[in-house]
Amino acid sequence: MNESLIAYHPLNGFCKEIFLKIGCSEKDARLATEVLLSADIRGVDSHGVARLSGYVRLWESNRINATPNIQVVHETPSTAVVDGDGGLGLVVAPQAMAIAIKKAEVAGTGWVAVRNSNHYGIAGYHAMMALEKDMIGISMTNASPLVSPTFSLDRLLGTNPIAVAVPADKQPPFVADFATTTAANGKLEILQRVGKEAPEGWIQDAKGAVSTNPHELKDGGALLPLGGDRDHGSHKGYCLGSVVDIFSAVLSGANYGPWVPPFVAFLPLPENPVGKGIGHFFGAMRIDAFRPADEFKAHMDNWITTFRNSRAVEGEKVLIPGDPERWMEEERRANGIPLQIKVKEDLIQLAAKFGLQHPF
Amino acid sequence: MNESLIAYHPLNGFCKEIFLKIGCSEKDARLATEVLLSADIRGVDSHGVARLSGYVRLWESNRINATPNIQVVHETPSTAVVDGDGGLGLVVAPQAMAIAIKKAEVAGTGWVAVRNSNHYGIAGYHAMMALEKDMIGISMTNASPLVSPTFSLDRLLGTNPIAVAVPADKQPPFVADFATTTAANGKLEILQRVGKEAPEGWIQDAKGAVSTNPHELKDGGALLPLGGDRDHGSHKGYCLGSVVDIFSAVLSGANYGPWVPPFVAFLPLPENPVGKGIGHFFGAMRIDAFRPADEFKAHMDNWITTFRNSRAVEGEKVLIPGDPERWMEEERRANGIPLQIKVKEDLIQLAAKFGLQHPF
Repeated sequence: MNESLIAYHPLNGFCKEIFLKIGCSEKDARLATEVLLSADIRGVDSHGVARLSGYVRLWESNRINATPNIQVVHETPSTAVVDGDGGLGLVVAPQAMAIAIKKAEVAGTGWVAVRNSNHYGIAGYHAMMALEKDMIGISMTNASPLVSPTFSLDRLLGTNPIAVAVPADKQPPFVADFATTTAANGKLEILQRVGKEAPEGWIQDAKGAVSTNPHELKDGGALLPLGGDRDHGSHKGYCLGSVVDIFSAVLSGANYGPWVPPFVAFLPLPENPVGKGIGHFFGAMRIDAFRPADEFKAHMDNWITTFRNSRAVEGEKVLIPGDPERWMEEERRANGIPLQIKVKEDLIQLAAKFGLQHPF
Repeated sequence: MNESLIAYHPLNGFCKEIFLKIGCSEKDARLATEVLLSADIRGVDSHGVARLSGYVRLWESNRINATPNIQVVHETPSTAVVDGDGGLGLVVAPQAMAIAIKKAEVAGTGWVAVRNSNHYGIAGYHAMMALEKDMIGISMTNASPLVSPTFSLDRLLGTNPIAVAVPADKQPPFVADFATTTAANGKLEILQRVGKEAPEGWIQDAKGAVSTNPHELKDGGALLPLGGDRDHGSHKGYCLGSVVDIFSAVLSGANYGPWVPPFVAFLPLPENPVGKGIGHFFGAMRIDAFRPADEFKAHMDNWITTFRNSRAVEGEKVLIPGDPERWMEEERRANGIPLQIKVKEDLIQLAAKFGLQHPF
């Protein structure tokens, strides 16, 4: 058995204790936990509790401020720039998204660029905050450079995800949430653990040649932009990753490109930073700033059912973005979240470090 | 010789005469010509003068209104919905983008969804309108269904392009402009003409199997979303194409998914339309709604030179989005635009139809 199951609530309680131990307020600890575990509950295991000890190590290296003074430093009716004061991205991001939503209530749309933040968990959580307000939510972030632009040998972009959440009526919402690379780093980590090769088009070696070795990044290799190679449109994935980097960091005054700070505390911070921390970008668009929300949502139901009911390749189903994560959430809320042994051991060590009871 | 060269100005004069002949005003004919030829001049031959006779046939089938009453039908401080009244997309789109820019001047950003329009030429033209105002420009459109979502056998999406234009200071602007498919339909048409096979990952056959036959779409095949197959992230390309469809058409009240009207006049209009015409979506974000424009543009110069000067795979260069089109424009403004014999013959026939002199 490589995994054991844990129910959501005890895991939530434990995470919150850890965030309190590093000095977060009760409110921030609750929020950070909810955002972090929204990844585990939706099946994006790479971005959830598996990263908790990573956040703690960043805090130990003084790279995370547990009591940030999160501030709007510039604004117009439909925009704001937020300085996260080095706080947890898990706390800074939902607050910035809440500002985008407030702007949209008045101006029709709201757009918030964030600097001086850290890793913000899954992109989709923040985008989905807009749904209950009958708004479309957009969320993106830059990240540590692991990705080479088309034809480059240097790692200049992160996996820079984009999430877009769109409300429907009787149908569940449309929720796209994806890295702008062929494969997210988390998928590579899974292959590393099970000792399998990666498909061609995911990674290149140090000389830019095709590689299927999931450990290639340790030897100067890189992840590839969505598309994989030039013939398959990697220049489009490179465009997408670049747009995320520019919106998140050049607009906000965060670090961009190769200057984005690493998530792992054992790697040094890049020299001569070009901004503050990492950057995010959020958008909220009120549906009724375009057409009546009921009308829009009825058409979204039609859009969703048309796509879902289209003819499928034998043995497969046509999915709507957000389907797999929603099904995973139903299953995990009912039956618990599977924790890999390595992750569980990591959490037990965290408990020991802070003198806490653990639920494992 | 399969091609002959023609200078920009006589080609421009000829196109304008054609648009006047179908009943456009002097101003609209000038604008439509400028937008159409911005494709030829930038090397996107599939979207330029090669389509002129297609627009004329749409007009002959009463699917294009040469004297549209383009109107804002709904608005908030940062948004508007524009009804294009069945006009040429080449005329409707730049007017809608101009509204987005005006909104941004006051509200920081402007977002305009358009219904009841037609094919709008290259996405990049409209996005680039923002550059001289020190704004970021965004442009997208839905299009005739040629693309199957991941695992689907039905053609439900168009090649749905996205363009993002970002100003810099001493460096030329960053201009991404790409179809959300592995390859644009224009690339397939080139392979058809020269009788070559397509790389795997561009198209599927009627049963959803890998195909390299560029004529496959005639036999029930489909273009594939960026990524090509599930292992290479086609679900991400499917997400992108869907977002373009939803923003362009479900927000605006245009036709979406399989209901998008075809560009070719010999195909019937889809039955039971779910909206009006095709849809576009535009955005303009004032740079100084986020930070001082000079500061931003200096960092964009740094971003651009860092990426451009990164180490390249042997024999290749690392390009910045917009480089190839800009180089093409310099070359074609100096030496003329190459016209394929078939396109030239088509234009000569158009001249005869309208009793016009032609410059070929």
